[in-house]
Amino acid sequence: MKNLGYYNGVYDEIENMSIPMNDRICFFGDGIYDATYSRNYKIFTVDEHIDRFYSSAEQLEIKLPYTKAEMRSLLEEMVMKMDTGNNFVYFQATRGSDAVRSHVFPPESVKANIWINIYPKEILDVYKKVSLITLEDTRFFHCNIKTVNLIPAVMASQRAKEAGCFEAVFHRDGRVTECAHSNVHILKDGALITAPTDNLILPGIARKHIIKACKEMGVEVFERPYNLDELFAADEILVSSAGALCLSADKIDGKAAGGKAPELLKKLQAKLLDEFMTQTE
Amino acid sequence: MKNLGYYNGVYDEIENMSIPMNDRICFFGDGIYDATYSRNYKIFTVDEHIDRFYSSAEQLEIKLPYTKAEMRSLLEEMVMKMDTGNNFVYFQATRGSDAVRSHVFPPESVKANIWINIYPKEILDVYKKVSLITLEDTRFFHCNIKTVNLIPAVMASQRAKEAGCFEAVFHRDGRVTECAHSNVHILKDGALITAPTDNLILPGIARKHIIKACKEMGVEVFERPYNLDELFAADEILVSSAGALCLSADKIDGKAAGGKAPELLKKLQAKLLDEFMTQTE
Repeated sequence: MKNLGYYNGVYDEIENMSIPMNDRICFFGDGIYDATYSRNYKIFTVDEHIDRFYSSAEQLEIKLPYTKAEMRSLLEEMVMKMDTGNNFVYFQATRGSDAVRSHVFPPESVKANIWINIYPKEILDVYKKVSLITLEDTRFFHCNIKTVNLIPAVMASQRAKEAGCFEAVFHRDGRVTECAHSNVHILKDGALITAPTDNLILPGIARKHIIKACKEMGVEVFERPYNLDELFAADEILVSSAGALCLSADKIDGKAAGGKAPELLKKLQAKLLDEFMTQTE
Repeated sequence: MKNLGYYNGVYDEIENMSIPMNDRICFFGDGIYDATYSRNYKIFTVDEHIDRFYSSAEQLEIKLPYTKAEMRSLLEEMVMKMDTGNNFVYFQATRGSDAVRSHVFPPESVKANIWINIYPKEILDVYKKVSLITLEDTRFFHCNIKTVNLIPAVMASQRAKEAGCFEAVFHRDGRVTECAHSNVHILKDGALITAPTDNLILPGIARKHIIKACKEMGVEVFERPYNLDELFAADEILVSSAGALCLSADKIDGKAAGGKAPELLKKLQAKLLDEFMTQTE
């Protein structure tokens, strides 16, 4: 298949797929998702993404109809049907379908709807430099849950694109939280500083792997709030997501930034890229 | 028709309607809506709701394919097709459909998708007393826009239902904002106090009519922030929405509340109900 969609057991090319108008996604955006990449038909860090998917569902009290093992098998089987082994692997669950639009949960008997999208996509070139803009973080206080209530991320991504930038860095009361669809971290004086995993940021899988790589390299890691001044003064600025692994920024709001610890940066990026390549050989 | 759905020119009973999986509602909840009621096939305050719908769209830079007059005609024609004249009239616009999931806006050539749902529903008995719970307001800072990013409203409505209550009153840093799907106001010492229309609350149409009715009755109106203590100490607590008009609460978090200005309350409610009945005769 050139791409593959799934909805509650029905498969087709994504552009041919439709969903019922009474799915709670339609009137409340009432769903959660997760996403990662496959290479050579192998899904990178699939269990970690499935674990987070179940955690997001649990926090919103969405009861998933499949076990984690069933979910993994389903994703793996779908990837095997693709024309290429290098894909974006996106999966989503919505709080079932309503008889009639109603904010409250549907009856217990209503099961969550399971959605999957698989289509060809490569991870980004980890060594490419990117530009960023900064924006006030006006999102809700549940950013630790990977929901599809993404309007603020949509608007911020559009602002970044219009500024010719890769991403928008959010800050709340001066504190840097994360980007519109990535986490953000800094290297300073040989250490990694990254925002703590509270309700203001998504606990990124790539973030976790950066922390692990730093520790293995003997780089000290501080999980603590940091502010905009520290971002601008950082030795390197790292942007991470499933598809970005660990990009670095050389410009923020049009001003030169980072670029002061190129060797440490390259060593870290090479280690993360090697992990991705080795696990998907 | 027993109920009627619409999506970009296609009509059917709502349970038979489907939408494409690549509508941006599916992956970003990227849409706005509005809703009101019809009685005797006449749509109450239809122009005010359409104005707010276009304002919501404009704030999110969603370009609507219809004029306000076309939108009104469409809603009116659909209501005329119903088996009963008393209906919930719900309309929505999403930021078009993507070729492939991408946070940024689709190309200019992609038009917004227009959705409509009409089904039988009566406004609530305005004289019925309701119970409320209070919850911390953890929503985003764009509550003035009527978006379908409604997960916090879903969760709060469910908590209210579990507590046997009609609604949840949100408060942010001690300040009362609004309810999960209503505005909330208080009567105190013969005056109406209601939160100002900033980015923390939806500018309710029913709220506007309550203010207008109070002014016509010689009741002083204060549009200013008020806190939880004032809510609990209020003479009357009013909950307003398109379908609630102006309900009053007699219990908050299990404690007796309001009930200290029953005559003024009843006069205000009668005036609002009379407006609804007269305009839909």
